[in-house]
Amino acid sequence: MRTLLLTVAYDGTDYAGFQIQLNGNTIQAEIEKALFRLTGSEIRITGSGRTDAGVHAAGQAISFDTDSRHQPATFVKALNAMLPRDIVVLNAEEAPPGFNARFCAIGKTYVYRIWTDPIRPVFERRYVTDLGQTLDIAAMQQALSALIGTHDFAAFCAAGSSAKTTVRTMRRAMVEQKEKIVEISLEADGFLYNMVRIIIGTLIEIGTGKLPSNCLETALKSLDRSKAGPTAPPQGLCLQEVFFLRQDGQLVLRK
Amino acid sequence: MRTLLLTVAYDGTDYAGFQIQLNGNTIQAEIEKALFRLTGSEIRITGSGRTDAGVHAAGQAISFDTDSRHQPATFVKALNAMLPRDIVVLNAEEAPPGFNARFCAIGKTYVYRIWTDPIRPVFERRYVTDLGQTLDIAAMQQALSALIGTHDFAAFCAAGSSAKTTVRTMRRAMVEQKEKIVEISLEADGFLYNMVRIIIGTLIEIGTGKLPSNCLETALKSLDRSKAGPTAPPQGLCLQEVFFLRQDGQLVLRK
Repeated sequence: MRTLLLTVAYDGTDYAGFQIQLNGNTIQAEIEKALFRLTGSEIRITGSGRTDAGVHAAGQAISFDTDSRHQPATFVKALNAMLPRDIVVLNAEEAPPGFNARFCAIGKTYVYRIWTDPIRPVFERRYVTDLGQTLDIAAMQQALSALIGTHDFAAFCAAGSSAKTTVRTMRRAMVEQKEKIVEISLEADGFLYNMVRIIIGTLIEIGTGKLPSNCLETALKSLDRSKAGPTAPPQGLCLQEVFFLRQDGQLVLRK
Repeated sequence: MRTLLLTVAYDGTDYAGFQIQLNGNTIQAEIEKALFRLTGSEIRITGSGRTDAGVHAAGQAISFDTDSRHQPATFVKALNAMLPRDIVVLNAEEAPPGFNARFCAIGKTYVYRIWTDPIRPVFERRYVTDLGQTLDIAAMQQALSALIGTHDFAAFCAAGSSAKTTVRTMRRAMVEQKEKIVEISLEADGFLYNMVRIIIGTLIEIGTGKLPSNCLETALKSLDRSKAGPTAPPQGLCLQEVFFLRQDGQLVLRK
């Protein structure tokens, strides 16, 4: 047996989310199906996190154990030949025994894209949330700065979460206007269920002037979900990158 | 009666091309259907040119006559509410009587995008031609420079063209590497049937080293279609912009 780590990108538009389920196509089911065709074994994969229906990934991390002897490069090539066109394996590498993409992740970056032009998007339509109005970037950036550091993010956690603690460390929170799109990047050691979408939903209310820019901080301190804004729609969200510990370029287990 | 000019963008992936036909969805049919719903009249539109099946437009120009009294801004808003999500009206403006998007166009820009990374594209997959290998940009740029100016482009015209003359003036021809995509822009006073795709097909053979960089010039001078390369696939092609004469910002008829 050996453990492999795959880096995978997908357009989540036509999927019911990452995690396998009885009804609806899932990213996990497509990858496990392709792995079965390649190796002849039923392989159960672990994602760094479960992206919701309609959410995309530019760098999702997936680990699994296999007794297949194929080179990592063969996994990339063979899986890409079998996967649907909206899922692609970007990289495959050997991981130490016991490595797990969920429990070994030391951080993640999510990007959320909002379309701000009154004319709706064509080419970008699958990857943005269409707001159709301009946003006050300065107010949003000011609001975001309150999230930096280690906090209890309970106010930004959807009901039904199984997280042991709601304390997370936000390392970076940026907002940027890129032509007709406002792009928000959040990097943390981990994210609670719907945390990004609730932060963004609140931030949109700030950017459109419905809420003052200090209300993100007020919501954070309240630890009360009802003090934060609505959950922003999934289609603007993309899991950009997952971070792991490395030594000499090799993956190592979490300390 | 009045004449209007619309600027329209579309993702051509799921269409059988611009021009209306018996089998398959077309851009023209969708827009005429929406215009009928808005005005109650059967309106026949004219595009600046007929993009092929799978070809996109970021700025197609469309003219039509109507006795509707709606403001141009109402056309934009109402049509966008009715059109499918992969077609959008960007602008509407009054045009002088007799104006015609095909015969009044004084120039066009086409952009062709080629994916050069060995790992296939996910988010860009509908808008690029997936070559999966790097291209020699310098050789391609050198080849393109031979096309600048007024020439007989008969070698780059598909059979079945009804053009009266195959002489065209190429004003600009650029190739640029943008991360994993090579983008080629061509601006001319007009283009023959499949002209861009035959130029690009030849250029790809040059960029991959299959043909020397002077073969675009050789093909041009031969006036012989069989001396040029294959016709490149449609999905990388986008009609970027259509140019018209204007005075004080108003559209005027061709001189």
